[in-house]
Amino acid sequence: MINKIDHLGIAVASLEEAGRVYRDMGFAYCGNEAVTEQGVNVSFFEVGESHIELLEPLGEDSPIAKFLAKRGPGIHHICVEVDDIDEALTRYREAGVTLINKQPVLGAGGCRVAFVHPKSTFGVLLELKEKAR
Amino acid sequence: MINKIDHLGIAVASLEEAGRVYRDMGFAYCGNEAVTEQGVNVSFFEVGESHIELLEPLGEDSPIAKFLAKRGPGIHHICVEVDDIDEALTRYREAGVTLINKQPVLGAGGCRVAFVHPKSTFGVLLELKEKAR
Repeated sequence: MINKIDHLGIAVASLEEAGRVYRDMGFAYCGNEAVTEQGVNVSFFEVGESHIELLEPLGEDSPIAKFLAKRGPGIHHICVEVDDIDEALTRYREAGVTLINKQPVLGAGGCRVAFVHPKSTFGVLLELKEKAR
Repeated sequence: MINKIDHLGIAVASLEEAGRVYRDMGFAYCGNEAVTEQGVNVSFFEVGESHIELLEPLGEDSPIAKFLAKRGPGIHHICVEVDDIDEALTRYREAGVTLINKQPVLGAGGCRVAFVHPKSTFGVLLELKEKAR
């Protein structure tokens, strides 16, 4: 049911500064994108079948700005790819897992995504992303 | 140079409790192992080419016990697989990246590993693991 780690999201204050270091460490840079709905500028790095995404806040209201203010830079979330997000969410509800998004919402690239609450996953903000069809 | 995300390490107080939830969420359980050198009991879950490792402290001196006491459960480290760890560490030193292990040490399964300091990687404890030969 879970195919792969789609990406890891890492909160940083400056894409320019952090991006340079991740390139220096041998991560394969593959582009930048502003995702205004989520209030972030993103730098993408390919790592095997997964990506690392550096996330820089677009403004003070960005969830990433709040995360940085509270905890400093670091891993913000893990995203895994699932075949069928409706089936996954039904399974999660039945298992008593607390969902942030009870129904899928549209994420970057038009994919259907949903977040699971860290209190159910032992401190991990988990994003489910449905495989592109 | 970096082949894939080898695993994500997640610190938890109880493997039994957390393992049940991760299985309920559809992660494919593939075994338990005590890694006494690192002071942890580990549950492994296969996710595509990567693994998720739930890490339970074996005692109060375990680094995972200290992490849990300070920050609570959550993502402890990211491990990426590299072809040549000596080459990677040389590159990192030349780039001014701060290393916890200046030379590779032996990790689980006899692989050569080294940790990079979170202050260089924007809050991420990064482990390099050399591909098994």
